[in-house]
Amino acid sequence: MTKIQSQFEDYVRRIQHFQEALSLMAWDLRTGAPKKGVEARAEAIGTLSDEVFGLMTSSRMGEFLEALEARAHGLDGRTAALVRECRREYDRNRRIPRERYRAFVVLTAKAESAWEDARNRNDFALLQPYLEEIVAMTREFAGYWGYEKDPYDPLLDLYEPGVRTAEIDPLFATLREATVALVGEIAESGRRPDPGVFARPVPVETQQRICRWALKTIGYDFDRGRLDETAHPFQITLNAGDVRVTTKYVVEDFRSALFSAFHEGGHALYEQGIDPDLAGTPLYAGASLGVHESQSRFWENVVGRSRAFWEHYYGELTKRLGPAWNDLDIETFYAGINDVRPSPIRTEADEVTYNLHILLRYELERALISGDLKVADLPQAWREKTRALLGFEPNRDADGVLQDVHWASGSFGYFPTYTLGNVYAAQFWEAMDRDLGGFDRRLAEGDVAAVREWLREKVHRPGRELQPHEVLKRATGTDRPVAEPLLRYWREKFGPLYGL
Amino acid sequence: MTKIQSQFEDYVRRIQHFQEALSLMAWDLRTGAPKKGVEARAEAIGTLSDEVFGLMTSSRMGEFLEALEARAHGLDGRTAALVRECRREYDRNRRIPRERYRAFVVLTAKAESAWEDARNRNDFALLQPYLEEIVAMTREFAGYWGYEKDPYDPLLDLYEPGVRTAEIDPLFATLREATVALVGEIAESGRRPDPGVFARPVPVETQQRICRWALKTIGYDFDRGRLDETAHPFQITLNAGDVRVTTKYVVEDFRSALFSAFHEGGHALYEQGIDPDLAGTPLYAGASLGVHESQSRFWENVVGRSRAFWEHYYGELTKRLGPAWNDLDIETFYAGINDVRPSPIRTEADEVTYNLHILLRYELERALISGDLKVADLPQAWREKTRALLGFEPNRDADGVLQDVHWASGSFGYFPTYTLGNVYAAQFWEAMDRDLGGFDRRLAEGDVAAVREWLREKVHRPGRELQPHEVLKRATGTDRPVAEPLLRYWREKFGPLYGL
Repeated sequence: MTKIQSQFEDYVRRIQHFQEALSLMAWDLRTGAPKKGVEARAEAIGTLSDEVFGLMTSSRMGEFLEALEARAHGLDGRTAALVRECRREYDRNRRIPRERYRAFVVLTAKAESAWEDARNRNDFALLQPYLEEIVAMTREFAGYWGYEKDPYDPLLDLYEPGVRTAEIDPLFATLREATVALVGEIAESGRRPDPGVFARPVPVETQQRICRWALKTIGYDFDRGRLDETAHPFQITLNAGDVRVTTKYVVEDFRSALFSAFHEGGHALYEQGIDPDLAGTPLYAGASLGVHESQSRFWENVVGRSRAFWEHYYGELTKRLGPAWNDLDIETFYAGINDVRPSPIRTEADEVTYNLHILLRYELERALISGDLKVADLPQAWREKTRALLGFEPNRDADGVLQDVHWASGSFGYFPTYTLGNVYAAQFWEAMDRDLGGFDRRLAEGDVAAVREWLREKVHRPGRELQPHEVLKRATGTDRPVAEPLLRYWREKFGPLYGL
Repeated sequence: MTKIQSQFEDYVRRIQHFQEALSLMAWDLRTGAPKKGVEARAEAIGTLSDEVFGLMTSSRMGEFLEALEARAHGLDGRTAALVRECRREYDRNRRIPRERYRAFVVLTAKAESAWEDARNRNDFALLQPYLEEIVAMTREFAGYWGYEKDPYDPLLDLYEPGVRTAEIDPLFATLREATVALVGEIAESGRRPDPGVFARPVPVETQQRICRWALKTIGYDFDRGRLDETAHPFQITLNAGDVRVTTKYVVEDFRSALFSAFHEGGHALYEQGIDPDLAGTPLYAGASLGVHESQSRFWENVVGRSRAFWEHYYGELTKRLGPAWNDLDIETFYAGINDVRPSPIRTEADEVTYNLHILLRYELERALISGDLKVADLPQAWREKTRALLGFEPNRDADGVLQDVHWASGSFGYFPTYTLGNVYAAQFWEAMDRDLGGFDRRLAEGDVAAVREWLREKVHRPGRELQPHEVLKRATGTDRPVAEPLLRYWREKFGPLYGL
């Protein structure tokens, strides 16, 4: 390693150390930090964030990047990727005038607060002026970052590097048509699982044991993590040996905690599976939000809501639930965790209709950013699109256009990564099914390890050293998101369940 | 506020923000951070510590201090104290050559590890070479810091600003004689509480409820704190609104968790009681280790082990313990929490013999630092002094000279603050007894608030704006630690208990 390379490594590691402190402060705020300490904590977070921002955009960083890029041909893959990622952040941050960035931070902080008010009072007008300014500034930022055809592209690139609207527009169109058709068939099937069977209390201690069991079963390493309780479950990585998850316990429906554990556990398996050689660098991370989401959805849905998994493990679950649940047979359970029906709230949607919620948002935010849709017309557009995609109109804006904080936070370009995650997950499933000689067969034998090790080797190990396209290529042979595996997966799963 | 003052405030607040991150990282390591993340965490802590050290000893800090000291007559008390504390840290850190300081950090890290080995194998020889170097370097550091008469003085000053050996030598001599006499009288009384009455299981959940109740009862504010479980209980302040405590649950003896909660709760009441105007500065802290310990000991012993407190609250405790404990009457309970008898381990000692453990260490470390005692002769000296002070010799060095980590950590001058804490606590008790028209009477009426508010006003509010002597003066009218109140307190308490 050359001298400059080793200085660069030290410099980057220093940034990661501040990031670790920031991540811990965020984790702590969500897992029980005393409420009266929050204001001072926010100031401390501000100080450390400024420090990190300063280090990432310093002239020293600029010098490192130039020097290393000048000898790019001589760099190993890891260093080249490190330079690429630092350059990405450096340019992204330096291209926006500092005072505009600060203005945006202040604006979105106010907008989030206005959004809370607006949702509580079911009054979009309270949010509208903020959202108008956010959309205007987001368009301005897209201009600083630059784009070839579509101002939405640099936004999407924030979360899904290298993916363009030209690529996902046809993908999402295919998906939209097929999903609407499938949801229609399911509704017409006349089969409707009874959600009432789950409405029985399970003590939190029991649910904790079930979640720990589920996490261990999929291969989560508790020596490198911990499980806590939060209102909104999440996964967070502090360092390569400290990958934490949380879940939420609903006494009257244990599915909430269990499937959040699978979901966050899927994120965590990704992080725990990255090559240790990348530890202490920004490459110790997921390739993108979409690839990350593919891993959470894979474990939540493709494994956790599969018949094959429960054929092997249902006894383990009911043993922990206790004798009061003896009447719940595996058929009823399996149907109950795969109840597909349109509903107004994205975060409560099943795995099929979920994507319709995303397509709705994607189409609307594309139109906002292109200028085709005015913020003032957004609530009406939301209602119309909900009717077109889900077949009903939400009763009130609070359960419609006001349900998510993302836009008030300024996160345009974020939503499509959820559906990309579902698409990628099915692509991985199809490739794995082929490589392992039968995905269901392995799961039904309880060979979760085969599934996990396939993902570890094909998807997890490279971390952010590879870009999403490269990960897809490595794992599946195809370097683009495609809809067919997801449609086949649904057909194979929901066909028998709903007699289609 | 002048411009330079406000810049200084910002600069100091920035340091506090890094300190908050460091405190949280330390708290997290002790409350369940995954073990495989510890190594990376230690590196992150190293980076942030370096940052803090750099900020505290920077030429910028030097310029602030010079500029503000030049206009000292125009400064308000708060700013003057802030300058005093920053100057103290600045000089202390700058006077030691950087490479000597680093060598000491490395040495003590190795010594702590050697100490663990030595204790586990009951072999002082494993620690001896490290301890010899630590003593030599500590003497060297004392030289850098400077002193008038005794090289121990600058060490004591690290933890107890403004207190000198010339002052505590006669105090400790008085205490030694009176304590040995009292312990002898108690042993001769023939009364010995039966420790067996506590050896019954209390589930952790029950003990958690009891600890929460105890903390609330003494006035700990859970909106500005939280209670967790750790192997070694501690209190830590992250910011003025976030003052945390921990305790340890021993299923077969609930006294452990309960009195740790009183003890750490006492520390926490101090921190929660400091003037909010000092928040975000190094003045939001205890005046010294001794004054801090006076608060923990006050609530643990003077309140928590008093008859008056339990006269009012015993029913609340037994209600939570449940019917299995109905046979434990208040007399047996009160005797059992005040069992005075010599034992080899400091951390398990009762409130009377505890000070003998400290005097033993104080005398030995004075002799090590003055050069009168060689490290090689320490184990023998330990045994002899234990016989002289406690009346027996420890069976093995692991339960004797090797029981504490302090010396291996390089913490010379720390031990006496424990006994100073007990001495101060009794001085506060005496003054409060006078001011409140009867301490016992108030407690027996359940008026814990009167006790707490007296401490808050007299001791807590000034935080580190005042020095230990000034706090004593403000609270008791006397500006020196004196032994008589402690001796009177013991006489009044243990006289009736042991029929003396």
